[in-house]
Amino acid sequence: MTESDLPVVQLTPGRWGDPAHSVELPAAAAEALKQLGVRRPTAPPADPTDRPGVAQDVQQLLTELLGAEHVRTDLETRWAHTRGYSTPDLLRHRAGDTSDMPDAVVYPGSHDDVQALLTTCSEHHIAVVPYAGGTSVVGGLAPAKRFIAVDLSRLNRLTHLDEISRTATLEAGVRGPAAEALLAEHGYTLGHFPQSYEGASIGGYAATRSSGQSSAGYGRFDQMVVGLTLATPRGTIELGRAPMSAAGPDLRQLVLGSEGAFGIITSVVLRIRPRPAERSFEGWRFDSFDQGLTAIRRLAQDGPLPTVLRLSDEVETAVNLADPKVLGGDGAGGVLAIVGFEGTRTAVRQAEVAELLAGAGGESLGAGPGETWRQGRYRAPYLRDPLLDQGALVETLETAGFWSALPQLKAAVTEALVKELSGQGTPPLVLCHVSHVYETGASLYFTIVSAQTDDPVAQWRQAKAAASVAIAAAGGTITHHHGVGTDHREPYAAEIGPLAVESLQAVKRVLDPNGILNPGILLP
Amino acid sequence: MTESDLPVVQLTPGRWGDPAHSVELPAAAAEALKQLGVRRPTAPPADPTDRPGVAQDVQQLLTELLGAEHVRTDLETRWAHTRGYSTPDLLRHRAGDTSDMPDAVVYPGSHDDVQALLTTCSEHHIAVVPYAGGTSVVGGLAPAKRFIAVDLSRLNRLTHLDEISRTATLEAGVRGPAAEALLAEHGYTLGHFPQSYEGASIGGYAATRSSGQSSAGYGRFDQMVVGLTLATPRGTIELGRAPMSAAGPDLRQLVLGSEGAFGIITSVVLRIRPRPAERSFEGWRFDSFDQGLTAIRRLAQDGPLPTVLRLSDEVETAVNLADPKVLGGDGAGGVLAIVGFEGTRTAVRQAEVAELLAGAGGESLGAGPGETWRQGRYRAPYLRDPLLDQGALVETLETAGFWSALPQLKAAVTEALVKELSGQGTPPLVLCHVSHVYETGASLYFTIVSAQTDDPVAQWRQAKAAASVAIAAAGGTITHHHGVGTDHREPYAAEIGPLAVESLQAVKRVLDPNGILNPGILLP
Repeated sequence: MTESDLPVVQLTPGRWGDPAHSVELPAAAAEALKQLGVRRPTAPPADPTDRPGVAQDVQQLLTELLGAEHVRTDLETRWAHTRGYSTPDLLRHRAGDTSDMPDAVVYPGSHDDVQALLTTCSEHHIAVVPYAGGTSVVGGLAPAKRFIAVDLSRLNRLTHLDEISRTATLEAGVRGPAAEALLAEHGYTLGHFPQSYEGASIGGYAATRSSGQSSAGYGRFDQMVVGLTLATPRGTIELGRAPMSAAGPDLRQLVLGSEGAFGIITSVVLRIRPRPAERSFEGWRFDSFDQGLTAIRRLAQDGPLPTVLRLSDEVETAVNLADPKVLGGDGAGGVLAIVGFEGTRTAVRQAEVAELLAGAGGESLGAGPGETWRQGRYRAPYLRDPLLDQGALVETLETAGFWSALPQLKAAVTEALVKELSGQGTPPLVLCHVSHVYETGASLYFTIVSAQTDDPVAQWRQAKAAASVAIAAAGGTITHHHGVGTDHREPYAAEIGPLAVESLQAVKRVLDPNGILNPGILLP
Repeated sequence: MTESDLPVVQLTPGRWGDPAHSVELPAAAAEALKQLGVRRPTAPPADPTDRPGVAQDVQQLLTELLGAEHVRTDLETRWAHTRGYSTPDLLRHRAGDTSDMPDAVVYPGSHDDVQALLTTCSEHHIAVVPYAGGTSVVGGLAPAKRFIAVDLSRLNRLTHLDEISRTATLEAGVRGPAAEALLAEHGYTLGHFPQSYEGASIGGYAATRSSGQSSAGYGRFDQMVVGLTLATPRGTIELGRAPMSAAGPDLRQLVLGSEGAFGIITSVVLRIRPRPAERSFEGWRFDSFDQGLTAIRRLAQDGPLPTVLRLSDEVETAVNLADPKVLGGDGAGGVLAIVGFEGTRTAVRQAEVAELLAGAGGESLGAGPGETWRQGRYRAPYLRDPLLDQGALVETLETAGFWSALPQLKAAVTEALVKELSGQGTPPLVLCHVSHVYETGASLYFTIVSAQTDDPVAQWRQAKAAASVAIAAAGGTITHHHGVGTDHREPYAAEIGPLAVESLQAVKRVLDPNGILNPGILLP
């Protein structure tokens, strides 16, 4: 497969995903927005106004390192590398706000390029932010200083495939669909399908501890990583001589989640699996979220575990299903679970799971709702753009906790959001689902929709702050798979405590003595 | 269950395990030793001679903190806390060598006691070494400075059980059998059964990344840990709000494997499982180690995975089986695999595994060899004492690597040991088995038997150094589950590289600014 054959979605700045896949707002949704008091915004989107870029001498330096064609300072390129895809990011984009725009965008072509770049930038105190998919939703691309963006899209190769060990070495800039295409040529899959799949990259998955929709079967991304290469201002670190080791702390797990603050991950060695021979998805109905939660907990603890396991709460079930009667029963409520199987012997596992779910009060809805979910699995972020166009505030946040803490965690976050947004005169709809399960606990993913106030960025900041306080008080983690970025930096510091923060800062000082790496991201 | 009901094996210093379980050397083994040129040592074991203990003012300080009954300075107590159970440790013990003996032994009774102790010891620059099971085989209890041993045996409680989340909080001093007894009362098991089970503790498991004989089914100890509490000279760190998180690096994985260099782990929150309803073990024969390796790799990659999966090489199979004819076939060779199942639906899984193993060239030997292995699973370390009595050098070492690297890794280590020990005039027997498997690789565990030279400690040091060089050159990790201690410190530093070493030293300086924690262990 040549580079030009690789599937790469050209993201449009400020709107999610492939323009060919953009969606219209369903009529029912438009009606619901009216009930929330949503009004079309009066201010039209503004174009970005340029601001001074990189200094001439720095541009010269970068050009000497990488060649003129790999150093861009034009407005269009810089604007396309500005921020990520959180709702505040999109709103600032619509406002033409260039305050977080990089001064230049550089395109290294190899690990050695990245290493040389970091050495030079450190020497000259030039702040850098690695950019691959650009899909951060937590302010992971908006550092505290002026900076240059290091676009890793030229690091796009499968450099090694070990079919005996079932590992693949992929460069950091390989995006989700390209990774699958490169592996599919040899009959393998990574099995990592986050909602950002079309845009996100291998390096980003690693740096932010991504988790995909098939995590029950394939694991989280940090569980797939068996080795990695990190370029730092002081040199290169290579980790991972064995799947597991007792040789000190697991340093791979120190780099995973470091969000570019310790260095730039240039390649990752990943556990791969044969492409699944079979695949099936089905829907299940439960009377209530609590009943469904008990059922999926039993699956997570006693197995067999499906490949995909999700449970929507009452509100999300009602909002997402055009026709609630598909839920069966008395048609007046209930919640939807999606159960998916991939691999071999799926029929056997499916039968065992069905027995357990039925015993826990579930009612099979057959393949219909499962296939509907599968086909629409990447649709939600596309839907956000027309919602914002209509003047709705729509955003997501997520957490995780141990099973015994989840009901209270869910109630506390919902209450905080409703209270805060209602207090601002914009009562919200709060939808919730579980999409990642473990033996000892699970994630909770919230979607919030309300009318926008006059200052929707501030409106959301306050709502998010209230939710973050509720998460901490109820014992959850500030993020299960979105990462820390700048948005979660303070709650993250509170979560791990001052000694742990100091420890990480000490590691950063060793690897990045001049503080050029993602300044202000992850760590205070 | 009251404390006095807890099963605790009273270890005898200098000899492994419960004296009631000591074993005689089988006649066949005595014959084999003759062929290796083993001769009874002429020097009788020596008693330890006392050396000055802790200074009066320090003893006073410790007594004020913990009470006189929890500060011991007598020779017997200090001698019983001297070193661990490597063969050099046992040889030095027999020689009455008190050079690594603690100056005092203290017994804190709670996390707060440990926290206060560390604060005080840091203030007064008193080096401390945590001691729970004392089962290190890598010099993990022999620091570079004079020190006091912090015996954690009073931290012996199950402090919290969350049956919904299936987690248990166990204090660091709980030993293997006591942990199982405490959990069994409620119907649960940890499923962690390393060969050191009778002596090793929860805190030690965590600090050294222990892996047990049922790791295929229950995972490694570091995979069971969902939370932990660490006392450091600068205060307490608590980690683990959810099974998994994207809130920065996984700091639990930075503490796991830190071997007391960052602090003393005082309690651990662990994933637990219901006690298995069924259990069965069986033996399988393969024509060769290579054939068996391919078979168990297929199980590890395509499943279903048994709870226990082990494969001995030709030499280990021949040495361990009194009657090689049990292997069937032509009786003249082959290798033995042990496959064990625990849990529910074991018959179904067993049938699937049998189909795969038979398809890979295996021949079922039925339950006999499986049960024999199960009953003798903790016997090997007991056997070492009579072997040493007879004048044999006997020791183990282990590594891990990716599947594709294992054949060369095994050959390289074996060759290095044979060459080095033969060069010393003591040609060895080198036995090997795989006992921990992953999708992408596995462990290799070597047992070495030869005659002793006049200086067996130096003899082994040279052999071990040769093996360590071979491991590094063949791409393996210096330890899969024994840990680093002092014995592996230099190869470990080479394995992770100078920047990673500096990063860990920086963390240590934050948490232990006066360098009182296990000085010289883990980090240079």
